[in-house]
Amino acid sequence: MKRIAKKPAEKMTQQGDCVFGPNVKPVASVSPGETVEIETYDCFMDSVRPERDWKSLLESGEEILENPVTGPIYVEGAEPGDTLVIDIVGIEVGERGVTALVPGFGVLEGWFTQAPPLSKFSEVKHGEVVFPVKGRSVRIPVRLMIGTIGVAPATETMATVTPSRHGGNLDTPEVTVGNRVYLPVNVKGALFALGDLHATQGHGEVCGTGVEVPGLVRVKLDVLKRKRIEWPRIESPDEIMTVCSARPLDDAVRLAVRELTRLLVTDYGIEEYDAYMLLSVAGDVEISQMVDPMYTVVAKIRKQLLLQMK
Amino acid sequence: MKRIAKKPAEKMTQQGDCVFGPNVKPVASVSPGETVEIETYDCFMDSVRPERDWKSLLESGEEILENPVTGPIYVEGAEPGDTLVIDIVGIEVGERGVTALVPGFGVLEGWFTQAPPLSKFSEVKHGEVVFPVKGRSVRIPVRLMIGTIGVAPATETMATVTPSRHGGNLDTPEVTVGNRVYLPVNVKGALFALGDLHATQGHGEVCGTGVEVPGLVRVKLDVLKRKRIEWPRIESPDEIMTVCSARPLDDAVRLAVRELTRLLVTDYGIEEYDAYMLLSVAGDVEISQMVDPMYTVVAKIRKQLLLQMK
Amino acid sequence: MKRIAKKPAEKMTQQGDCVFGPNVKPVASVSPGETVEIETYDCFMDSVRPERDWKSLLESGEEILENPVTGPIYVEGAEPGDTLVIDIVGIEVGERGVTALVPGFGVLEGWFTQAPPLSKFSEVKHGEVVFPVKGRSVRIPVRLMIGTIGVAPATETMATVTPSRHGGNLDTPEVTVGNRVYLPVNVKGALFALGDLHATQGHGEVCGTGVEVPGLVRVKLDVLKRKRIEWPRIESPDEIMTVCSARPLDDAVRLAVRELTRLLVTDYGIEEYDAYMLLSVAGDVEISQMVDPMYTVVAKIRKQLLLQMK
Amino acid sequence: MKRIAKKPAEKMTQQGDCVFGPNVKPVASVSPGETVEIETYDCFMDSVRPERDWKSLLESGEEILENPVTGPIYVEGAEPGDTLVIDIVGIEVGERGVTALVPGFGVLEGWFTQAPPLSKFSEVKHGEVVFPVKGRSVRIPVRLMIGTIGVAPATETMATVTPSRHGGNLDTPEVTVGNRVYLPVNVKGALFALGDLHATQGHGEVCGTGVEVPGLVRVKLDVLKRKRIEWPRIESPDEIMTVCSARPLDDAVRLAVRELTRLLVTDYGIEEYDAYMLLSVAGDVEISQMVDPMYTVVAKIRKQLLLQMK
Repeated sequence: MKRIAKKPAEKMTQQGDCVFGPNVKPVASVSPGETVEIETYDCFMDSVRPERDWKSLLESGEEILENPVTGPIYVEGAEPGDTLVIDIVGIEVGERGVTALVPGFGVLEGWFTQAPPLSKFSEVKHGEVVFPVKGRSVRIPVRLMIGTIGVAPATETMATVTPSRHGGNLDTPEVTVGNRVYLPVNVKGALFALGDLHATQGHGEVCGTGVEVPGLVRVKLDVLKRKRIEWPRIESPDEIMTVCSARPLDDAVRLAVRELTRLLVTDYGIEEYDAYMLLSVAGDVEISQMVDPMYTVVAKIRKQLLLQMK
Repeated sequence: MKRIAKKPAEKMTQQGDCVFGPNVKPVASVSPGETVEIETYDCFMDSVRPERDWKSLLESGEEILENPVTGPIYVEGAEPGDTLVIDIVGIEVGERGVTALVPGFGVLEGWFTQAPPLSKFSEVKHGEVVFPVKGRSVRIPVRLMIGTIGVAPATETMATVTPSRHGGNLDTPEVTVGNRVYLPVNVKGALFALGDLHATQGHGEVCGTGVEVPGLVRVKLDVLKRKRIEWPRIESPDEIMTVCSARPLDDAVRLAVRELTRLLVTDYGIEEYDAYMLLSVAGDVEISQMVDPMYTVVAKIRKQLLLQMK
Repeated sequence: MKRIAKKPAEKMTQQGDCVFGPNVKPVASVSPGETVEIETYDCFMDSVRPERDWKSLLESGEEILENPVTGPIYVEGAEPGDTLVIDIVGIEVGERGVTALVPGFGVLEGWFTQAPPLSKFSEVKHGEVVFPVKGRSVRIPVRLMIGTIGVAPATETMATVTPSRHGGNLDTPEVTVGNRVYLPVNVKGALFALGDLHATQGHGEVCGTGVEVPGLVRVKLDVLKRKRIEWPRIESPDEIMTVCSARPLDDAVRLAVRELTRLLVTDYGIEEYDAYMLLSVAGDVEISQMVDPMYTVVAKIRKQLLLQMK
Repeated sequence: MKRIAKKPAEKMTQQGDCVFGPNVKPVASVSPGETVEIETYDCFMDSVRPERDWKSLLESGEEILENPVTGPIYVEGAEPGDTLVIDIVGIEVGERGVTALVPGFGVLEGWFTQAPPLSKFSEVKHGEVVFPVKGRSVRIPVRLMIGTIGVAPATETMATVTPSRHGGNLDTPEVTVGNRVYLPVNVKGALFALGDLHATQGHGEVCGTGVEVPGLVRVKLDVLKRKRIEWPRIESPDEIMTVCSARPLDDAVRLAVRELTRLLVTDYGIEEYDAYMLLSVAGDVEISQMVDPMYTVVAKIRKQLLLQMK
């Protein structure tokens, strides 16, 4: 299995490793159907550590690369108008997680304008995150996920911190082991990259970060030829989901519901209004995050309900 | 057990039975700790039926009472500054549900401007909603809930269709059997009322309605003296939740997260930033509905995590 | 000319004088076409004064009536489905204005969470507001306006601080002498009231208040029978305007543009798309305020352009 | 005077001429203080014409370059942390303007989902736009402006259709002859470009376009060394303005007011709260456009008021 190693930190650049774009040079190439192993930094380039916390890092004035990804990977045969299919086969993460209050970030940013830059370190082991609060340890079940996963947009070069139609910083807990992600291909080779793993994260990611960890991801990459989608999709064993990003959150909801309505029409032959009403009584709309430059929402429905109509 | 019967339809009025307000005359009075049984109409006053669907009702030009509730109930001893505690002991619903596309309502209202007024009838039985799509029956698990539950605001008289600090049309699936709802008391006697049951509803309630049903609710009403809350709360066996309503949805999220952060500070002695970061990694923000005059969001965290810090 | 005097402060109540509602008892009655003179308190009931500023008033714990209006006035012959026409004939204001930072209010509320309650007093004379900044006096031209003007909603009783379809706390600088305001009549007699004068206010009213003054207003009240409008309108010698309130501001813009598009269609016989495109190149959308419970936007076009098409 | 000619249409590309980005190759270089003349296409590349309207162009399936600009121009000596100063010396425009309904664009996009692609042609002469409505000609005063004006962002490459901190598609009527625009320099040489002239446009640009024209612009480019600004600013003979773009419109308002508050603090030595209250009574917040990928708002205050405090 091909392994895409992390670049040494000193070779990483904001314009090369913290963007998705049509002109970023691929670091590897894979065939459709191939599985690769990808090493990732955490969203702070592994540089926030107990001996050098977020506050002292910010005060040092050093440039901090934001949300680096590993890649991009050139997927042979992928062309604009196709769909890239990513099966998430495995995620392994480091034993130390960091959660930080990033100035100007977070759902309560307005109320906490005086917030000191804070970082909190947790241990990740035996399926639990050991998170310190009040001098005690709260044990939170691990829920591994990939925060940033995407392909190159057609024209623009976007910071990896932004989620949009091409994927990006979705911070969607459902991007996890056992699930399949679909992304629209916009340029030849797709130029796929990922990073920003979380040991766990709540829906909303309200302070701006989850339990941020470096790690290793195994994905199988494949191409659906001449299948065009407008926004990312996710399929779990039980559910199908559309994933849309916008501001305000209202617009992300509207887009995700519209996409899922359309999916029910095109893929299941359901009438538009029937699909809409079915989602109202049996679908769910879920917030992934409301902290990144665009907010991300998932609309979902159980596959078992749809199978009854086949 | 006291039973609050439905008023005959011809005695119901928009200004008396479709509002929460300080000057609405109570229909009954209960002692703190008392359990009552409350009969409810569905949100269309039981008037949308297969033989007289939503479209023909709208075309008839008749005035339709919107979202009637049963009550208000005067709770003895409840005064401004107290909290009303409602244990939802039981919900029973009728066997026919209706789901409708209400003109000008719904997440996709903008895209479906040409939508015909549509109603769809489903059967509710054996724990399932039998929902017709494409000439087939989709079987959706029943998830009983109370759509509208509230008390009188202090000064304003609000249509029951609007959710806000006093409760109202929250359309929150977690307002269900086995859970406890907390509402701020704003006037003497609280003036509690409820209605608008759903046999099931997705998070988002995207087309504007769930499976709307008439029914019978049993609630135990109690008063927490001199405990002031700003917004509704819900407690389930596993979770505590704050419930806030605003537009845009973003503001509802901000309010719900702020309320839950404050709750962790005041009730669990957690530092403000610790609470905020804990919610980011282990709490969840969930959309109840994005269709009513204000949108409703729930922020929640598992009680088991908080118990570890006691 | 009939004069509606201020009620003595000790007889004013939150539920009687700080709401618009169908059940508020009128204080006077006028015939269509009649001109009346109305005395008004400032938005703080004239109680914030140099010797007793906003901070000490808040700290005193006294209940402060919010945004009192004078009225309501019963307009004979006005019935639901009619339009109330208000010609603003004259505005006179007191010589002392107050501008305050109201906790939780204002465009920058999020950034100024630590803001002390502040009040600033200005002198209003010779057509200027003398506003103290940095120990100097800034002279700002007076631009008199009525902040709150409205009628009773059909069913709800709304705090005067909220603007909506019935008018209310529009805080629209164009509600000024020489202009005509149109409001939809929702209940018999319309139940018209006004208050909250400003000696001047910027578009946006960004900190939450203008130069707040008590005063005297002369208005001529008339009724357009069987003319139904959905939202307030304003006519100046040069322009016609629609005035809509919502959150977020985006929705207020959408509503105001839609209303003005419809007005061009119904009153000027212009095709819908032509009207829309004409507004894009020659109409203007203007923010009145973004601080009240709903935000208010005006869409406007010069009458001279429309006359060319008659 | 240096003249930057339009590139031949067949040499224009989406990735080269319809983006602002750090890697776009400059077409010319100027010294600080130099005045240049820049030829521009209209926002449809001059390709929507009476003999080939918007509808037939869309139906042709041809790729249409979106919102092309002329440039970028390398400004010698400009470095990150400086401010680029652009004096708009002259604007001349062609005699035919086009206004179009762009599918999926416009304030009323939600209500007009069935809108046909429409284009309307107007004549621009003698200081007037002759705009056809109802078979008549409405004469609208010309108000020349530059719709798109910007520099390269530091890391991202953004479509010219998007306004943000770097300028871009601001569609701000105040970007006009006699005014001065300030933009933050993010990369060496600034990489300045402009295009998208309008013969006139209302505040809001509600249908998505103004009167779109090709033309010729004369600008004097200069550099303020070591003066860092966060967002574009404009200075007219009478006013100073901050120009911010975001979604929802509410956030654009908050940003613009915050920027102008800060400007009053840093450049005029006014206390923060004084500045905020002064803007509330004597500043104005104005919508430029609510149709592009971000919405643009201007906060402004008259310089004459500030001079009183010097």
